[in-house]
Amino acid sequence: MRLCTNAGRSPHTWGLSPEFPCGYCASVSDAERFRALGHRLIDQLADHLAAQIGGEGAVLPWREPSELAAAWPPSFPEQGNGDLGGLLARVLEASNRLHHPRYVGHQVAAPLPEAALCDLVASLLNNGMAIYEMGPAGTAMERAVLRWMADRLGLGADADGVLTSGGSAGNLTALLAARQAQAGFDAWGQGSHAGPPLAVLAAESAHYSVARAVQIMGWGEGGVIPVATDDRFRMASEALPAALAAGERAGRRVIAVVASAPSTAAGTFDPLALVAEFCRSRGLWFHVDAAHGAAAVLSERHRGLLYGIEHADSVIWDAHKMLRMPALVTAVIFKEGRRSHEAFSQVQSYLFGAEAKRWEVGLRTLECTKRMMSLKLYATLATLGTAPFADHVAGTFDLARRFGERLQAASDFELLTEPESNIVCFRHRPTGTPVEALDALQEAVRRRLVREGSFYLVQTSLRGAVWLRTTLMSPNTRDEDLEALLGAIRGAAATEARS
Amino acid sequence: MRLCTNAGRSPHTWGLSPEFPCGYCASVSDAERFRALGHRLIDQLADHLAAQIGGEGAVLPWREPSELAAAWPPSFPEQGNGDLGGLLARVLEASNRLHHPRYVGHQVAAPLPEAALCDLVASLLNNGMAIYEMGPAGTAMERAVLRWMADRLGLGADADGVLTSGGSAGNLTALLAARQAQAGFDAWGQGSHAGPPLAVLAAESAHYSVARAVQIMGWGEGGVIPVATDDRFRMASEALPAALAAGERAGRRVIAVVASAPSTAAGTFDPLALVAEFCRSRGLWFHVDAAHGAAAVLSERHRGLLYGIEHADSVIWDAHKMLRMPALVTAVIFKEGRRSHEAFSQVQSYLFGAEAKRWEVGLRTLECTKRMMSLKLYATLATLGTAPFADHVAGTFDLARRFGERLQAASDFELLTEPESNIVCFRHRPTGTPVEALDALQEAVRRRLVREGSFYLVQTSLRGAVWLRTTLMSPNTRDEDLEALLGAIRGAAATEARS
Repeated sequence: MRLCTNAGRSPHTWGLSPEFPCGYCASVSDAERFRALGHRLIDQLADHLAAQIGGEGAVLPWREPSELAAAWPPSFPEQGNGDLGGLLARVLEASNRLHHPRYVGHQVAAPLPEAALCDLVASLLNNGMAIYEMGPAGTAMERAVLRWMADRLGLGADADGVLTSGGSAGNLTALLAARQAQAGFDAWGQGSHAGPPLAVLAAESAHYSVARAVQIMGWGEGGVIPVATDDRFRMASEALPAALAAGERAGRRVIAVVASAPSTAAGTFDPLALVAEFCRSRGLWFHVDAAHGAAAVLSERHRGLLYGIEHADSVIWDAHKMLRMPALVTAVIFKEGRRSHEAFSQVQSYLFGAEAKRWEVGLRTLECTKRMMSLKLYATLATLGTAPFADHVAGTFDLARRFGERLQAASDFELLTEPESNIVCFRHRPTGTPVEALDALQEAVRRRLVREGSFYLVQTSLRGAVWLRTTLMSPNTRDEDLEALLGAIRGAAATEARS
Repeated sequence: MRLCTNAGRSPHTWGLSPEFPCGYCASVSDAERFRALGHRLIDQLADHLAAQIGGEGAVLPWREPSELAAAWPPSFPEQGNGDLGGLLARVLEASNRLHHPRYVGHQVAAPLPEAALCDLVASLLNNGMAIYEMGPAGTAMERAVLRWMADRLGLGADADGVLTSGGSAGNLTALLAARQAQAGFDAWGQGSHAGPPLAVLAAESAHYSVARAVQIMGWGEGGVIPVATDDRFRMASEALPAALAAGERAGRRVIAVVASAPSTAAGTFDPLALVAEFCRSRGLWFHVDAAHGAAAVLSERHRGLLYGIEHADSVIWDAHKMLRMPALVTAVIFKEGRRSHEAFSQVQSYLFGAEAKRWEVGLRTLECTKRMMSLKLYATLATLGTAPFADHVAGTFDLARRFGERLQAASDFELLTEPESNIVCFRHRPTGTPVEALDALQEAVRRRLVREGSFYLVQTSLRGAVWLRTTLMSPNTRDEDLEALLGAIRGAAATEARS
């Protein structure tokens, strides 16, 4: 028996018990419960990680939504049984496995194990980050990673920004700043009715969160003026004047061009330098949605894809895509750092003092409380170095290029376009299949592979046709896995043909 | 020496090495690195947790921002030294300690240790949650916790909603749905210029994120029509007709009333039943920002504070406040579940199929990728039971009531208003201090206590005066800690008087 020796209270036995409502006992009990559960969980997760990266089992253990809903009912006991480990084992079993070599689905990171551990620290500390006092270390690290990212992108010494909860919030934050800078009236203070309807120019290939941001701001569907794309699904810079004229004819004040680096569906990069020059000549804000591709700047061989991004007025960069961070960590970076204060402007007396501009990040983000999201990025950059990040970008982009060559060499596959990033779209065209049956075939093949768990890949519609879409996110995917994917697709198509 | 036995590859020794670019070896190496670092971290965090809850050391180890910035410079080596544990020790040392019994600051949860462990699972799995396939278990658990929350609030069988990244995003999501339902024109599709300027009614005590949401949507500062408050800082329901008339006189179409449960600064609850009746009679949307207080519904003794919330058209509830979750987990719940689909409406071909409405949560949240935020709430409710949550709400609310009584009994303290929640505002009024010196005294005292690390509390301005503001968030705070706080304030004020 151990005695509580907490100063100022009479000694008593050690443990969480209603008879001893002592903060110290409760604390020790909480901490020891955390320790015991934590060690068990680490082993559970390490085993799961080893198995999934080793390619064991299904990538996605497919089950119908209704079946999973039944497995996780919305009723909770008053007193639980404490079996957290058992419950988490069921979660691991039912989840998609992003570290699996045959995960080639959406562009969400297979996280660095170190980054996941940092998230545990962030979650236990729960340092809220809206104001400096609530998250001093997190705030300092946030300033540092933003400085590093801005420097890598060549945005200059005045660049500054914030971390926010995801690319959608990031695009919204950037466009709010653009609105304030370019509308020609005080859109924040006076509102939309103080001026004409606004619009941005963006390629049809831009991420849906751009239109979403515009429509949140009340600009309607007409708030995005489409810019034509070239044969590789990139914004056609020569189409920009016509798009601008179309916006003006529609009675819109066009304030910005949104370029994608790369676009989500096809993974190709808009011509940033040409768009930058157009924006400069017309006095437009230049926003780059580089959520997926900004990390290409870390690879000597690939940074040319981002040529011109240094002229951007604003950039978003999702660290939970190519920097292998757990979601969500999005950087919104402004070339003129002061723009970062213009997106939002409320001041609340219980939160912000007069000297708040530099250190109180809540002044610049949609969130008030936010996660200590800088920690994982700072800590892994500092202790693993930048090389593993650069290697991951270069490795997955190169793997995609080789996969593209393999697809081009295969007579029964059609490559959408030569890959520029780690996103590769293609179709299976088995001999003798009529063109009008190809869309249904891609869908059926994907559905079969996903539900049998052999691969996880997605699909997209581009210019009226359905394409299989892969993004090479797992650091464990090798050429032979992609060769096996083609084999599995051929097999699934043959099975479909027989059924 | 162990041999890699990965099928189809030649056997080789086990470990991460460039000579053996085998996914399996990389995985095992990753997993074993995770295991080793993880076990070390669990002990590091358990020790930290025990010390802070035991009241050891400073609550906030105050350091100037510039000092911390120097400690976390924005430069990273190409090859790191791998010392994650050392870096994290510095983070623990520099962070605010929310589990400390003398943390009485902002309303951010001292997280349940189990919930932090669940976040580690969420971060390592990184199941992205925009679409069902990317987060099947997380999606099922999200549906379940929302059902449970809606039922607790009495919102009825048709209620439905989403989890989103924080109360600010939550208020914005709810008001976007209100706009779509009530504007009288298609604000999403056609934009603001298709109708008159819109507005909501809200008390001046409403959280700043309400005005922020309104200004994001382009309604300007005039988009929030202030409603007068009573002597306890609650919305005065009898002032609603005048506010509505003022909005109409200003040329606004008023679409909603936003009530707070409770307000942030003073912690008192707007009269929800009376506001509900006003909304019903005038055909207005009734939104309740119950980010902090919705959890009161779990306590038999306190649920009366929420009387009338069952009539709300939309409610937000932050689980990272009174449900002891790590940030961010905000529920946005609509009485008519279909409203949840009206806040956002883009459909993206590579993401969403036709049957997507029920299971593809990305259709209803600001985020595309989002964290698997349901896991921690589901898992702790299921394995700890609901009792600890109810006890936490009741315990901290009761502690605040006793603290209020103590303040009322002390002749040198002034209580702002009788506490209704766990938020308590007060001023120190030492005998002989002139009234005009009181504001500066509160600020100086707070600054002194925070910087010496003995307590963490905040301050707010209400009706032109500065008040000390405490929120009793730590489950380890006891009456004697609050008695000690008053002693420390008296001591700090005396020191100030001498200096």
